[in-house]
Amino acid sequence: MQKKGIILSGMRPTGAMHLGNYFGALENWIRLQDEYECYYFVADWHALTTGYEDTSEYKSNITNLLVDWLSAGLDHNKCVLFVQSAIKEHAELHLLFSMNVPLSWLYRCPTYKDQLNQLKEKNIATYGFLGYPCLQAADILAYKADFVPVGEDQLPHLEITREIARRFNFLYKCEVFPEPQPLLTKAKVLPGLDGRKMSKSYNNTIALADSPDVVQKKIMTMITDPARIHKTDPGHPEVCSVYAYHQLFTADEVPEIESACRKGEIGCVACKKKLAQNVTRFTTPIWERRQEWLKRPDDIRDIISKGCSKAREKASETMSDVRKAMQIDWI
Amino acid sequence: MQKKGIILSGMRPTGAMHLGNYFGALENWIRLQDEYECYYFVADWHALTTGYEDTSEYKSNITNLLVDWLSAGLDHNKCVLFVQSAIKEHAELHLLFSMNVPLSWLYRCPTYKDQLNQLKEKNIATYGFLGYPCLQAADILAYKADFVPVGEDQLPHLEITREIARRFNFLYKCEVFPEPQPLLTKAKVLPGLDGRKMSKSYNNTIALADSPDVVQKKIMTMITDPARIHKTDPGHPEVCSVYAYHQLFTADEVPEIESACRKGEIGCVACKKKLAQNVTRFTTPIWERRQEWLKRPDDIRDIISKGCSKAREKASETMSDVRKAMQIDWI
Ligand code: SF4
Ligand code: SF4
Repeated sequence: MQKKGIILSGMRPTGAMHLGNYFGALENWIRLQDEYECYYFVADWHALTTGYEDTSEYKSNITNLLVDWLSAGLDHNKCVLFVQSAIKEHAELHLLFSMNVPLSWLYRCPTYKDQLNQLKEKNIATYGFLGYPCLQAADILAYKADFVPVGEDQLPHLEITREIARRFNFLYKCEVFPEPQPLLTKAKVLPGLDGRKMSKSYNNTIALADSPDVVQKKIMTMITDPARIHKTDPGHPEVCSVYAYHQLFTADEVPEIESACRKGEIGCVACKKKLAQNVTRFTTPIWERRQEWLKRPDDIRDIISKGCSKAREKASETMSDVRKAMQIDWI
Repeated sequence: MQKKGIILSGMRPTGAMHLGNYFGALENWIRLQDEYECYYFVADWHALTTGYEDTSEYKSNITNLLVDWLSAGLDHNKCVLFVQSAIKEHAELHLLFSMNVPLSWLYRCPTYKDQLNQLKEKNIATYGFLGYPCLQAADILAYKADFVPVGEDQLPHLEITREIARRFNFLYKCEVFPEPQPLLTKAKVLPGLDGRKMSKSYNNTIALADSPDVVQKKIMTMITDPARIHKTDPGHPEVCSVYAYHQLFTADEVPEIESACRKGEIGCVACKKKLAQNVTRFTTPIWERRQEWLKRPDDIRDIISKGCSKAREKASETMSDVRKAMQIDWI
């Protein structure tokens, strides 16, 4: 099948993937792998921008992320899976871009000051943290990606990549880089068990690595409508995370659940049990595949090593175009 | 012979080397190659920090610099000669350092603001220009250099490299990097033909590529003591560049020349002729070897390609130590 163009996307290896990540990005990646030529990478160098001080879980995080990907349905026969730090071309292109990217572009990046404030306790007022969009541009442009799946909030980052591509083509009178287009995806947002944003730091996640038992137990602890004391009290599904989950996992029965809740015809325990069934129906196969992949670390290495070779081939072609356009191809 | 340690030094390929460069650095490099394990590199990526907008002479500048080196006496059997951009490990190490180098270290580098002002017409308020000391640290530390030949003015740069080495060893509880020591050299300063600093932009240089004829003619145009009208007028050698040149090229006869000049016993033309003889005695063999090397571009490529292999071997050993120390050696 003729694919529709090149897609590039990466994820930082920062620990076990949870259902929020799955519905926020991975589900979309899995869908796209059939339609596009997809390069998906573990953004391990990016993880250093905020995590350089403690790298003790760096390697296990990479392995776990790959296990999550493969178990959730990324298919290495359909897309290229690789690890950023294995492709030195990213570092070279990042360096070459750094020479012509105005500092002002980086300072004006909206997330820069925000993050600097949010992560005050980490010493991230570093050169590399400022230059993060420059590395990201190298990641994307090394594959001459046509599309990048992004959420609204990441549009400014992609815009810097587009500006870097334009500036390069202009400076060196060439058309080496396409301007990658955003592939805006309405990600499904799944709240955490406590109703806040699902996040490891809130300890309110369901991880892809959670066993069916654990998933079940976690769901039974979810916070529901606090106004319901007795199961016959009328409920307010709009404030209940269990209800939010049903919209994803029990899509067909949402009207019935809503009505039963509002009328006090269903208790929260029963409602959660139904949800637990449906969530585990979804997570158990992933979890089972996880158990299988965990037994095959060598196969994973082999898959990734092949993915890295494919990625390297593409990136090194780009680099040779880049060096030629810049007239710096002495070697 | 047991060598005394590793030395790393680089030069930007910015055009024909002149005698000021020779006595400012190259003479010292040539001396050091017998005593130390020397890695000398063409800093072509560095040349992009200020020269990214016009790269039309990038490649010929590299070739010319190598021809200058080989003709002047760098011996590829005694030292490792290589081109920076061929060793991708510099880019990778630069990226890894960027993650933990505080921005403040770069802003406080004394040459940063100076250069930014001096080179206003060039758009160098770029990310890479700010990060120049970070790339320099990568250059030096990739070879675990023990010594770096520097002038007084470059001490602050080397100090950043030392800080980066210390910070790395501290963060990752290791001793991967030595703290390279400065090898302070009292460089011989040779003024330009007009008495100002010798510099291509003043058009007052004697290039290693100048033929004996050209050297001779250039010397005859040198500016001498302006107070001397007739050759019997007493001269002031301390204000005369010809005299400054004699100190390097006619070292034995300096007292006689001084006295003859002060007493008005020698005319400036005769004095210049003597100098021209001595300078060409020095430059002609270099120029002749230049003509030979220019006929052997393939041999030069071969020499550099071998040098690059040696450099790469050393740098990639260091990188594997670096990745191990950082615990990021997943691949
Ligand atoms: S019945 Fe279901 S939807 Fe209603 S509050 Fe309880 S858990 Fe939430
Ligand atoms: S005689 Fe020689 S040293 Fe004296 S002013 Fe003339 S050129 Fe200079």
